Amino acid sequence: MSEDIVAGLRAALGDERVLVGDRIPDRARSDWSGDHKGRPLAVVRPETTAHVSQTLALCSAHGVPIVPQGGMTGLAGGADPIDGGIALSLERMSGIEELDPVMATMTVLSGTPLETVQKAADDAGMMFPLDLGARGSCTIGGNLSTNAGGNRVIRYGMARDHVLGLEVVLPSGEVLSSLNKLVKNNAGYDLKQLFIGSEGTLGIITRAVLRLQPKPVSSTSAIVGCRDFAALLEVLRRTRARLGPTLSAFEFMWPSFLDFMVEHIEGVQRPLAGRHGAYALIEASGFEMGKDREQLEACLGELMAEGVIDDAVVAQSERESQTFWRIREGVAEYPRIVGITVPYDIGMQTGDIGTFVEALERTLNARWPDALVHFFGHIGDSNLHIVVGRLARENLGELNDIVYGAVRAAGGTVSAEHGIGTHKKPYLGYTRSPGELALMLSIKRALDPKNILNPGKVIG
Amino acid sequence: MSEDIVAGLRAALGDERVLVGDRIPDRARSDWSGDHKGRPLAVVRPETTAHVSQTLALCSAHGVPIVPQGGMTGLAGGADPIDGGIALSLERMSGIEELDPVMATMTVLSGTPLETVQKAADDAGMMFPLDLGARGSCTIGGNLSTNAGGNRVIRYGMARDHVLGLEVVLPSGEVLSSLNKLVKNNAGYDLKQLFIGSEGTLGIITRAVLRLQPKPVSSTSAIVGCRDFAALLEVLRRTRARLGPTLSAFEFMWPSFLDFMVEHIEGVQRPLAGRHGAYALIEASGFEMGKDREQLEACLGELMAEGVIDDAVVAQSERESQTFWRIREGVAEYPRIVGITVPYDIGMQTGDIGTFVEALERTLNARWPDALVHFFGHIGDSNLHIVVGRLARENLGELNDIVYGAVRAAGGTVSAEHGIGTHKKPYLGYTRSPGELALMLSIKRALDPKNILNPGKVIG
Repeated sequence: MSEDIVAGLRAALGDERVLVGDRIPDRARSDWSGDHKGRPLAVVRPETTAHVSQTLALCSAHGVPIVPQGGMTGLAGGADPIDGGIALSLERMSGIEELDPVMATMTVLSGTPLETVQKAADDAGMMFPLDLGARGSCTIGGNLSTNAGGNRVIRYGMARDHVLGLEVVLPSGEVLSSLNKLVKNNAGYDLKQLFIGSEGTLGIITRAVLRLQPKPVSSTSAIVGCRDFAALLEVLRRTRARLGPTLSAFEFMWPSFLDFMVEHIEGVQRPLAGRHGAYALIEASGFEMGKDREQLEACLGELMAEGVIDDAVVAQSERESQTFWRIREGVAEYPRIVGITVPYDIGMQTGDIGTFVEALERTLNARWPDALVHFFGHIGDSNLHIVVGRLARENLGELNDIVYGAVRAAGGTVSAEHGIGTHKKPYLGYTRSPGELALMLSIKRALDPKNILNPGKVIG
Repeated sequence: MSEDIVAGLRAALGDERVLVGDRIPDRARSDWSGDHKGRPLAVVRPETTAHVSQTLALCSAHGVPIVPQGGMTGLAGGADPIDGGIALSLERMSGIEELDPVMATMTVLSGTPLETVQKAADDAGMMFPLDLGARGSCTIGGNLSTNAGGNRVIRYGMARDHVLGLEVVLPSGEVLSSLNKLVKNNAGYDLKQLFIGSEGTLGIITRAVLRLQPKPVSSTSAIVGCRDFAALLEVLRRTRARLGPTLSAFEFMWPSFLDFMVEHIEGVQRPLAGRHGAYALIEASGFEMGKDREQLEACLGELMAEGVIDDAVVAQSERESQTFWRIREGVAEYPRIVGITVPYDIGMQTGDIGTFVEALERTLNARWPDALVHFFGHIGDSNLHIVVGRLARENLGELNDIVYGAVRAAGGTVSAEHGIGTHKKPYLGYTRSPGELALMLSIKRALDPKNILNPGKVIG
C-alpha cells in the first residue's frame, strides 16, 4: 500500500515534489520542541492548492495519515510527522497575492513566513500586528492553524483575530474556498473558526485573507521593577486603564529570568540598578509622535510617587527600546546557552499567578536543585511561560505531572498559545471537561471521518 | 404527542413556566422584522440552566422543534416560533453573576439585556463596547447567537470578539460548560465559536463570560459632508491612519437619509448649511480628556484644506454629540413615521459601495417611484444598510430578488450583521458556495442529529 501511494503522488505531482528515503530533509522530522525523529514515508512539497487537493485525495483513498508542516517552529509536536505517513510541507506555497489598501487586507499563500507578511504591511504604510520570536521562520499557515499569540495580544488579539477568510483543503481533497474580505459577514456559520487553532486536524489551510491595522507612528518601551507580583498587577491595571489601546505589550519577567538574560545575552545591561521582586517590560504605541512616551512617563511617574513601582526606566530612543526587548527575546538563545529546554505556555487567572510561581519554583528547586527554572510571560493575557533546562530527559514525565498538576489545581489551561499537539494531549483533560472533549471528537469525526488528517494530535 | 410534551414540560418545570393557548404572549409570536404570527405549542420560560436542559431533553425525546428567544429584536426571523413547536424564552434567565475587575470579565445569564451589561461595566469603571440601537430590549444571548455588530465594530469588533466563555445546552439536553475567562486558551478546539453567530441552531447559550475594555475618558463626534462617496472613502482612510484606535465609529449617511431624519426627528437640526453628496458621522474616543476632539479637528481641518471634505462640524459638547447621533439612530423611528419597512444589512468591498448605491437607488426609484429608499451604514466595516418603506407587501419577493441579485453581482454578503434566520435563507447561496453550505450542513447534523433546534433557520 505504501508503494501505491508514493507512486500515485509521483504520477499526480511529479517526482521532484515527492521526497522519499535519504532525500527527506531532517527539518521535516521534528518541530523545534525536541529530538523527535519521525520517519515519514514521503515529504510532499506542493506548489498549488490543486497539488494539496490531489495529495489529500490520495491519502484519503489509501487511508494514509498526513501531517501538514509550515516553518516547523511549533513547540507542541503538532507538526511532527507520523511514521509511515505523508508529511505535507507548505514551504513552496509562499507569496503575497494581493494587498488591498482600501479594505486593509492582504491575501497570502499559507507557506508565507510571518516576517514577510509583517514587512509587506509595513511597506504599504499599515501593520500586521501578530508578532512572535520565531517570526523569521514560522509561516502564516502555522500561525493560523495554531492560533498563535505572541507579544501584542493585549492590544491586537490572537492570530484568530487577524483573519477574515481562508481557503482550506478538506481531508477528502475538496477545496473549501472561503476567502472573505469583509470584517462583517454573518451569512451562516463562520466556518473559518473551525480551522483556526485546530492544528491541522480538520483541514489544511492553503490561503488566507489577513486583516491589516493602522500603523502606529511611534512606540516606546519601559522596564519597571516592583517589590512583588501583586504590585506588578496594580501596574498592569493602572497602565491599561490610563493608556487604553496605546498599551501594546506588558511582559512579565521573574527576577531569576532577568538576571540570567543580563548575564548571558551580549550587549545587554542590567536595566535598573537594584534587584526587584518582579519586573515588567511595557510597550506603548501611539498615533502622535512622542505622545506615547509622554503618556507612559506620566503614568509610571504617578505609580512611582505612590510607591507601587520601586524603579523604572523609559527608553529614550528606538535603540534603547530594542535593548530592553533583547532581554525578553533572549529566550531564543536558550539552545545555545543551556541546550534543550522544556517550554510551557500555561495560563490562569492573572491574580493567581504570583503565588503559583512562588510555589512551583520552590517545588521544582527542591526536586531538582541543579535545574534551570525560569518564569516570564504575557501577563496582560494571563499567559505564563515556564522554561526548565539542565534536566535529564527521563525526568520529563515527572516534570509534566508536577507542572500540569499545579495548573489543574489552579483551574488554568495547559496551553495558552502553543497548542496541544502530541506533548500536551495526555493533559488536555486537565483543562477541558469530558463534555468538551466529546464535542471536539464529534467535530473531528464529522470533518475527518477517515481520521487521516494529523491523527493522534490534539484529540482522537 | 403534542399533549405528551406539554405534560412532560409541566411536570418537569411547573405549570407557571409553561404557557399555552391564550397565555402565549404576542411578543413570542414574531421578532421585530414583521407581521409573522407564529403558533407555538407552548412558550417555556426557564429560570435555570437545568430547566433549559430538561426542556431540550424532552424536545429531543419527542422530536419536537424548539426555538430559543431573547429580546425578539432580531430582523431576520431567526427567533420566530415554529408552529406546533416549543418557544424557549430566556427572559427570566437574566442577571450579572460576577464582575471580575482583575480579569476584566463579566459573567452573565444569557437573558440579560445588553444595556444592563453596558451599565454594569460602566459602573465598574470599564466598558462593554458592543452597542446597537436595540440595546434596551435585546439580550446578550441574542447578541451572541447572532454575532451582533452595531456602531463600534470599526474599533472593537463584533459580538464574537467580546466573548471568552460560554455555557451552552446541546440539543440532547447535555450542558456544555465552557466558561473560560482567559484571553488566551489554545487547549483544543475553540468550541464557543460554533455557537456564536449560528442563530440558535446548534445549541442554546445560557451563560457567557464577556470581555470588558478600558473605558475611554472622553469622546466627541463630527459630521462631515463630501461631494461624493469616493471623497468620503478618502476621509475614512485618512482618519483611520491618523487616529488609529481613537476612531470609534464611522457611519455613512446618504443625502436622502439625512434629509429625511432632519425633517422627521424632533429637535434635530440640519448639521451643515449646504447639501452634500455623501455624509459621515465620525466618533473619536480617547484616554486623555479633550485630546480626541483636538486630534479629530486637526485631521478634519487638513482634509478640508485639501478639498477632500466640503464642510464639517465637530461637536463642542456631549449634548451636541448626542444630537448628531439622534440623526443616525432615527432609524428606530421608522415604524412611527412610515410603518413597516424592509431592512437590509448587506456588505461588500468598501470601494464598490458608492456605485452600488447609485445604481440600486436608480433601479428602485424607477420600479417603485413612491417607495422610500434609504441608504446608510457602518461603512468602515463594509456594511451597508438599506431601508425600503411605503411598499406593498406583495412586492417583497421582487424587492429581495433585486437587492440580493445586486449583492450577488457585487460579490457581497446578504447579511453583514442581522443574520440569515428565515428571511435570507433562500439567498444564502448568493454569498456562500455549495462547498460552504455542505460543510455548514455537516456541522448542523453532527451537533443536532435530530434537527430539533431552530430547524429550518439558516441552513438545513
